[in-house]
Amino acid sequence: MLYSEFNLIWDYFDRQKKNRRDVNIGIGDDCAVVVIPDKQQLAISTDTFVSGIHFLPNISPDDIAYKTLASSLSDLAAMGADPVWISLAITLPFIDFNWIENFSNIFFKQLNYYGMQLIGGDTTRGPMSITYTVYGYIPIGMELSRSGAQNGDFIYITGTLGDSAAGLAILKNELKVENTFYKKYLINRYLRPKARILEGKILRNIASSAIDISDGLVSDIKHILNASCCGACIDINNLPQSEALKQNTTFEQNRLWSLSGGDDYELCFTISKVNKDLLETTLKRFSVDFTCIGTIKSQSNGIRYYYNNEEVDITFNGFEHFIINKN
Amino acid sequence: MLYSEFNLIWDYFDRQKKNRRDVNIGIGDDCAVVVIPDKQQLAISTDTFVSGIHFLPNISPDDIAYKTLASSLSDLAAMGADPVWISLAITLPFIDFNWIENFSNIFFKQLNYYGMQLIGGDTTRGPMSITYTVYGYIPIGMELSRSGAQNGDFIYITGTLGDSAAGLAILKNELKVENTFYKKYLINRYLRPKARILEGKILRNIASSAIDISDGLVSDIKHILNASCCGACIDINNLPQSEALKQNTTFEQNRLWSLSGGDDYELCFTISKVNKDLLETTLKRFSVDFTCIGTIKSQSNGIRYYYNNEEVDITFNGFEHFIINKN
Repeated sequence: MLYSEFNLIWDYFDRQKKNRRDVNIGIGDDCAVVVIPDKQQLAISTDTFVSGIHFLPNISPDDIAYKTLASSLSDLAAMGADPVWISLAITLPFIDFNWIENFSNIFFKQLNYYGMQLIGGDTTRGPMSITYTVYGYIPIGMELSRSGAQNGDFIYITGTLGDSAAGLAILKNELKVENTFYKKYLINRYLRPKARILEGKILRNIASSAIDISDGLVSDIKHILNASCCGACIDINNLPQSEALKQNTTFEQNRLWSLSGGDDYELCFTISKVNKDLLETTLKRFSVDFTCIGTIKSQSNGIRYYYNNEEVDITFNGFEHFIINKN
Repeated sequence: MLYSEFNLIWDYFDRQKKNRRDVNIGIGDDCAVVVIPDKQQLAISTDTFVSGIHFLPNISPDDIAYKTLASSLSDLAAMGADPVWISLAITLPFIDFNWIENFSNIFFKQLNYYGMQLIGGDTTRGPMSITYTVYGYIPIGMELSRSGAQNGDFIYITGTLGDSAAGLAILKNELKVENTFYKKYLINRYLRPKARILEGKILRNIASSAIDISDGLVSDIKHILNASCCGACIDINNLPQSEALKQNTTFEQNRLWSLSGGDDYELCFTISKVNKDLLETTLKRFSVDFTCIGTIKSQSNGIRYYYNNEEVDITFNGFEHFIINKN
């Protein structure tokens, strides 16, 4: 295949009518040229998705577009950023125009939903992978970082945890769910997660730290604890779970997935006692689901888990077995 | 291999001491957060490099780092931008710490040379590829675009053309060069090209259009002509060539490589009659090599080639044979 033929792919991505006013030069020159408004800073995040590693090789281009975009935008959400632009580098082993059309349709549908503009990228031949760089605005000084949690802060989660891991298990025939509504719900939570952009923006100037849950609650909260030099107590009873998850899994299974299943893309954040009421009032006003799952402690505490008010040991045995050992 | 082990790669890229003042949050959070100074706009470019497509599979990590970075920075040069940050997404099939150390050493050496900071990225397992997003400042209104060329403008090239194609031919045993100095020079022009950052900055407010020569002069100048709705006359006698190229190739071979060989990363730019003297004086003051190779004509002219003051037809027969047919 000639290089020039392969460049035809780009035609599918050079069709966005709406130009943002902050984009002086978009696709079609050596670089995009953008202007950042006064009093805004720019959040930037890069993510690569490889077929077979980050998504099942047989899922549809629509689902790939939904899932990879949500995963990238979730990083902006975790900083309290408002998405503005995206760069796309896509590598494909061969040209399948049907695949490219479906992928790009969903890609632009999502971009339009968020008011984002594609400002550049690259199409190359090779083993399939997608790399996004996403850009968002945050008013100066209002970014949510991982490093602001303090002893005594409350730990919160948006939405529910573990659904995505259950959805993946259904797709891999490792979990059977009879009820078609629940089945579809769980699969969609895996294939079509949502980045918590609104939630991140609400948390600006209220939360003391935040992260998105991409690798699993325990993995990700450790990033907050390390960056903030803190420990935490987590109440296993309070882990937010959907009916779909609870009704189709054992206690052990759903707690494991809620603690260590990835791809939920909910936000985990901390908040001081002073801001707790303001937070809860504001989140309710925007109809955001949220749950307090524990408190930040001093670093010497490490992470401790409680179940029915008793401390329990939790062992993640190679991320495959979940064991609660009472002390 | 566990995912967490694979993340160890990132340790090699999380070691840059110097923090730029415009980077509020660098590597280690969900996003980088940067602040753009007053009166500057941001140029952004994304490039993917796949092993076996964009570079020979057997070249050293040092050379890969040099070549891929120069290629990406060349896009900033073509816009007149001053490099500031970079995001790196690197996908590797397995962990070879020796390879990663060598690659990252050259990567940071180059970043330090340009005063750039690595602000984020991703390391993943998969078939080898590298995606950079590079960022640079341009004073507002001073960007060089492809679309400003006008009938009567002169066409210029920095440096010499065709060296990189000759270097590649040597590495592929398709060209034999006895003289070791020339041989090394040509190979280095392929493996270790330089982005013309200084040249791009000099051209701000002087050139009417610019592009970097990555795919070959004829391919790339067409982007200027299309974007500017112009044609061009190019003087084959005036194509700038190194002694190394001229002394080791036939006339046909070196003209072919100068017109259509890729990877030179020189700048091609246009300039109005009014600015010609200012341009030449300024470029000489900075010791920049440059050559006038033709003039911009009206669109109906298309591209015409002249040799010894006579118009000639040039046929690129599958990019393998170069034929001058006198009209």
